Amino acid sequence: MKLITEQQVIASDQKIVMLIADGLGGLPLKPGGPTELEAAKTPNLDRLAYEGCQGLLDPIGPGITPGSGPAHLALFGYDPIEYNVGRGLLSALGLDFDLHSSDVAARGNFCTLDADGNVLDRRAGRIPSIQSEPLCSKMESEINLGDIKIHIRSEKDHRFLLVLRGQGLSDQLHDTDSQQTGVPPLKCQPLTESAARSARIVDDFVVQARRLLADQEQANGVLLRGFAHRLPLPTMADRFGLRAAALADYPMYRGLAKLVGMEVISRDTNIETRYKVFDDNRDDYDFFYIHFKKTDATGEDGDFDAKVAAIEELDATIPALMETNPDVLVVTGDHSTPAAMAAHSWHPVPVLLHGGFVRQDAAKNFGEQAATQGSLGRMPMMHLMPIAMAHANKLAKFGA
Amino acid sequence: MKLITEQQVIASDQKIVMLIADGLGGLPLKPGGPTELEAAKTPNLDRLAYEGCQGLLDPIGPGITPGSGPAHLALFGYDPIEYNVGRGLLSALGLDFDLHSSDVAARGNFCTLDADGNVLDRRAGRIPSIQSEPLCSKMESEINLGDIKIHIRSEKDHRFLLVLRGQGLSDQLHDTDSQQTGVPPLKCQPLTESAARSARIVDDFVVQARRLLADQEQANGVLLRGFAHRLPLPTMADRFGLRAAALADYPMYRGLAKLVGMEVISRDTNIETRYKVFDDNRDDYDFFYIHFKKTDATGEDGDFDAKVAAIEELDATIPALMETNPDVLVVTGDHSTPAAMAAHSWHPVPVLLHGGFVRQDAAKNFGEQAATQGSLGRMPMMHLMPIAMAHANKLAKFGA
Repeated sequence: MKLITEQQVIASDQKIVMLIADGLGGLPLKPGGPTELEAAKTPNLDRLAYEGCQGLLDPIGPGITPGSGPAHLALFGYDPIEYNVGRGLLSALGLDFDLHSSDVAARGNFCTLDADGNVLDRRAGRIPSIQSEPLCSKMESEINLGDIKIHIRSEKDHRFLLVLRGQGLSDQLHDTDSQQTGVPPLKCQPLTESAARSARIVDDFVVQARRLLADQEQANGVLLRGFAHRLPLPTMADRFGLRAAALADYPMYRGLAKLVGMEVISRDTNIETRYKVFDDNRDDYDFFYIHFKKTDATGEDGDFDAKVAAIEELDATIPALMETNPDVLVVTGDHSTPAAMAAHSWHPVPVLLHGGFVRQDAAKNFGEQAATQGSLGRMPMMHLMPIAMAHANKLAKFGA
Repeated sequence: MKLITEQQVIASDQKIVMLIADGLGGLPLKPGGPTELEAAKTPNLDRLAYEGCQGLLDPIGPGITPGSGPAHLALFGYDPIEYNVGRGLLSALGLDFDLHSSDVAARGNFCTLDADGNVLDRRAGRIPSIQSEPLCSKMESEINLGDIKIHIRSEKDHRFLLVLRGQGLSDQLHDTDSQQTGVPPLKCQPLTESAARSARIVDDFVVQARRLLADQEQANGVLLRGFAHRLPLPTMADRFGLRAAALADYPMYRGLAKLVGMEVISRDTNIETRYKVFDDNRDDYDFFYIHFKKTDATGEDGDFDAKVAAIEELDATIPALMETNPDVLVVTGDHSTPAAMAAHSWHPVPVLLHGGFVRQDAAKNFGEQAATQGSLGRMPMMHLMPIAMAHANKLAKFGA
């Protein structure tokens, strides 16, 4: 369905708060058991669920497991398939790297090559950061691409960010990572004619890197993927007329927020302090995105009990949030991270909507099963933003 | 999702009746209370709900509050965004004005201009019809646009319909209403090159109207919006192979029905008489649209109890309808008009489907909460028509 939200935007004084418990959706540890959210004692969220309405929303689409980038874009009302953010850009955002608009960023992996130049291990034995960091510095200082300046930043373990800076660079480049072992890394293929020079520059980088890493036992090669410019995304002000603010401590989420034109008004790790910052700044913005990381981190660790505790920790802060009287409050996750899987998953995410002429439904507590009974039903997550805007009186009638 | 309904159409003898209680969806007056439909005693509709299935459908899309025009097009199986009906055309339909295919219609507002020509009040103090009607007649008889003939009809209060009739007119014109006060009305901007002459004609009309109204205290200017030709919509016969009939008393709804090729076979205000007319004409048509206005009018008035009474009045007629044995019956609204808001709203609408191999669901009564448990789920309203057609055996298998 085509969205028409943008043509219907009107101004109102009402404030929308979107509280994102990262990776909130979960799974039971055994059949018939509760999910993390259902196991957690959440009297405050349950009361909001009783007063509001719920649904189970698909971050991207049925069956699709999202990364944090597209999952957040969907929360912010962007079609995550239309606005497909490249992995290189997400790496830059995650590292708080100040990407210029003409830069090309790529995600790099150190890899292990055999004597014939075939890939033995796409992740170089997952060498720890302490080993990979000096290799990143060495590549940055010793590889010479003429006019093109190189920036390399170590990510965790075998991963790094490569940024090429110079005139006339294109991101229309195929990955050099074939995602297979037993074959050599791919030569960089230009996807358009005007990207031919950029492809040659990338190949030059790869050849020099291999020479420089030749003495390494594990990390003796590099694989590159997700070449990307900084996307010229329309801002939330452009699209929805919303002055939007982000309150988040992790760089990736601040970066995603900045990508859609939000101002970061708090990096405080204490979430109640952030509620206070929201309250102090409420006149200057219309939309507030508050990010809570611990639910995802504990899910990724496969620690069911720790995720339950994280949810209970968030629940305990809800009275402080409600004292600030947000006009419309959304509580949800960007995706599911079931501890049982220790990874992101495709499962739809429970969404709680509270305030502003909400039509109460039969769901009496906040959880996956309750959300199945909710009046929001099941739909793609990108539709949540127009629904929140409607409840905040920010959308005009369509047609007469 | 792309619709394939049109390629699958087959003929059957079964009759579909769509009973539309305008503005049916509602809200509780206080948290935990019933909506209008839930408060109403509706034993007959409840029995149909028990025997049939329910869902909560979005007239246009999540968060979008519809006007009656697009909401009805969605009920009739048309994508209301693709077939966006201009306000001028809806005004003409609402007044039963016989628009020719080359005419251009626009919705006019009388407005108040200050000494500098800036808009003081976009609605001229909402002057009553008794004041605005003579001004409409005066404009129609005294404004001279050469070859172009002018028709002006008073709508309620400060509103009027302007129809320009002549050769080579275009509706590709921007509104002259900037929707703001403190600024002058906009000059008419042509949206295409070939609309330049039409824009000059509109500007000429506005200048002459202003001269003619100069002595008025409140209504001393005009604002125009929604320039529109009569749309060349594909008919329901073209799209769905349906011979379609409308039974409606209000001109706007008869006009919308005619727009998609329906024949109006009853304007009777008594709904049981209309059921009789349906029964008498069942052999000549496949689809019958029956409109009931009172649920919307009482909702717009903000009168919860009157809307409850209107729903009960409709319920009491259901036995007479069921005596005619419609093969497939749909009972729903075009949108929600909660008395608590005294306006159209974005909330999804309960839909009841009865007959023709319907898969009974757990919902035991007709209402918003029950519909949340219904097997139709939540989806855009334009998908209702293919579902009704399937139950009437009017859609063939897709693929082998």
